[in-house]
Amino acid sequence: MAAYALGWSDADGTPQEAGGGKNLRPAIAMLCAEAVGSPAESALPGAVAVELVHAFSLVHDDIIDHDERRRHREALWKAYGVGPALLAGDSLLALAIDQVAGDSVAMRYLSRALVELVRGQTEDMAFENRPWTGPGEVSAQEYVEMAAGKTGGLLGAAAAAGVVLGGAPGLAERMWTMGRELGVAFQIIDDLLSMWGDPAVTGKPIHNDLRRGKKTFPVIAALAPPAPPAAALLAAARPAGRAARELSALLAVGVLDDDAVRRAARLVTEAGGRAAALDQARLHLATAMEIADECLPAATELRDLCLSLIDRSH
Amino acid sequence: MAAYALGWSDADGTPQEAGGGKNLRPAIAMLCAEAVGSPAESALPGAVAVELVHAFSLVHDDIIDHDERRRHREALWKAYGVGPALLAGDSLLALAIDQVAGDSVAMRYLSRALVELVRGQTEDMAFENRPWTGPGEVSAQEYVEMAAGKTGGLLGAAAAAGVVLGGAPGLAERMWTMGRELGVAFQIIDDLLSMWGDPAVTGKPIHNDLRRGKKTFPVIAALAPPAPPAAALLAAARPAGRAARELSALLAVGVLDDDAVRRAARLVTEAGGRAAALDQARLHLATAMEIADECLPAATELRDLCLSLIDRSH
Repeated sequence: MAAYALGWSDADGTPQEAGGGKNLRPAIAMLCAEAVGSPAESALPGAVAVELVHAFSLVHDDIIDHDERRRHREALWKAYGVGPALLAGDSLLALAIDQVAGDSVAMRYLSRALVELVRGQTEDMAFENRPWTGPGEVSAQEYVEMAAGKTGGLLGAAAAAGVVLGGAPGLAERMWTMGRELGVAFQIIDDLLSMWGDPAVTGKPIHNDLRRGKKTFPVIAALAPPAPPAAALLAAARPAGRAARELSALLAVGVLDDDAVRRAARLVTEAGGRAAALDQARLHLATAMEIADECLPAATELRDLCLSLIDRSH
Repeated sequence: MAAYALGWSDADGTPQEAGGGKNLRPAIAMLCAEAVGSPAESALPGAVAVELVHAFSLVHDDIIDHDERRRHREALWKAYGVGPALLAGDSLLALAIDQVAGDSVAMRYLSRALVELVRGQTEDMAFENRPWTGPGEVSAQEYVEMAAGKTGGLLGAAAAAGVVLGGAPGLAERMWTMGRELGVAFQIIDDLLSMWGDPAVTGKPIHNDLRRGKKTFPVIAALAPPAPPAAALLAAARPAGRAARELSALLAVGVLDDDAVRRAARLVTEAGGRAAALDQARLHLATAMEIADECLPAATELRDLCLSLIDRSH
């Protein structure tokens, strides 16, 4: 089951060549170790740990979200049942921890990432039950904090463990922050892909998030009123304002059929949510790159890898 | 949800005075720290960690086993849903790890316990699909290895973390072994309680394990043929041999109704399974006590606590 979850084999055990994930997190850990002058291999326990935690979180997330597809195949719980998949997830996490348990500095960052991961995941789940607009609506700021936990914590741990195991623990705290900023950018791009990505590339059904009422950044941005009162009056008269009001009315209905979901996605674009999300992702990426440039000026490969995250969207 | 899982509150948030668990694992950690001459409080991070891991494992086990009752109340997943309960379990584990992440020696034992826990739990689940008798039957030895992982690992980590945090890391390895032996005894007593305990005391429906085909020690022992061939011939002629054959035929049917389950429990006693289980539990407890006496000769409270585990059964 672990081999299936990691994309190494089919459900019947046949080895699989392609598939699997992007190995983004282990790549960050190893590039960070190299950037501080150590062999990439010095970060191996941290690299393995973050990839196993990532696999654990996908296995459990798919159970929590009832997602039946993952990477063009059935989700693990769909292929093997909820109980076995839950336990396989726990096993991946146990093995992850075992990788770095002996290094208390790297372990501290992995542990922090785990706490952040479950906090972000809990907030994300709680957001689903909150309204799109009005009292109790999810703000852009709340979204950013959720994403910094759910997605940023583990990227932060990857970068921090990389420099720690590479022999430069003094840079760990800054790299943790770098990873968290990167995570926010990454999560917003994921939101964009869920609405406008090619299912043949993403491996997941389109508009999944919208259908289930997930509070993604493009929709939050589309619905958020412009800050200054004068701008708001102006905006209400513009097509963007009209699209936002129409979107708000549509989402208030609750369960959306295929037509409604497609219309909602179009309205998000018209209301400026798509552009605002891309701007926001670029902003967090820029902050991450600033920290990377300052701490690891020679790390061009790390820089290229991080920049490629934005390119997933278009 | 964590407060509910720990027995601190009802599902509606009302604080609960009674309830909760026995706090056996934190008690072991703190008594071990005292036994090596440190204040009990020195073991607090380890004590909190092992209790949180225990809570995590109960929450996930109830989902995996479809157990609807726990400590006289609804199981967490029954009260809040599978997804939220799964995530609450993950959160308890994340917080547990965070307690000891900074101490690499204590962390090593907690990590080992986690790996053992998921190994034992996986074996326990796999045993359910294996036959009671014949090729592929679960041996007493396999049961002991499963229980040493599923139940013993965390007790081992509790004892080891206790002496490590109490300032005597040199004793940790022996205390790990002590906890694992204790765990086997503890698990066998749990099996006995599941068959002959008072549901008003255990908080769980009786014969739950038997109904679901769980390979518990009393049944394994009842069905196991006596080792020497001569004894086997003799035994087959005795009431115990007849009871074992009758039990085997009954269990081969598969799904058992209430009458059949009661008859099976009676046959386990007649076939000597109940007595053999108690003997086996006492054997592992004696090994654990030998190690404790040797490493921590003055630890009378620890000794009393461990001995009280056997008294749960009668």
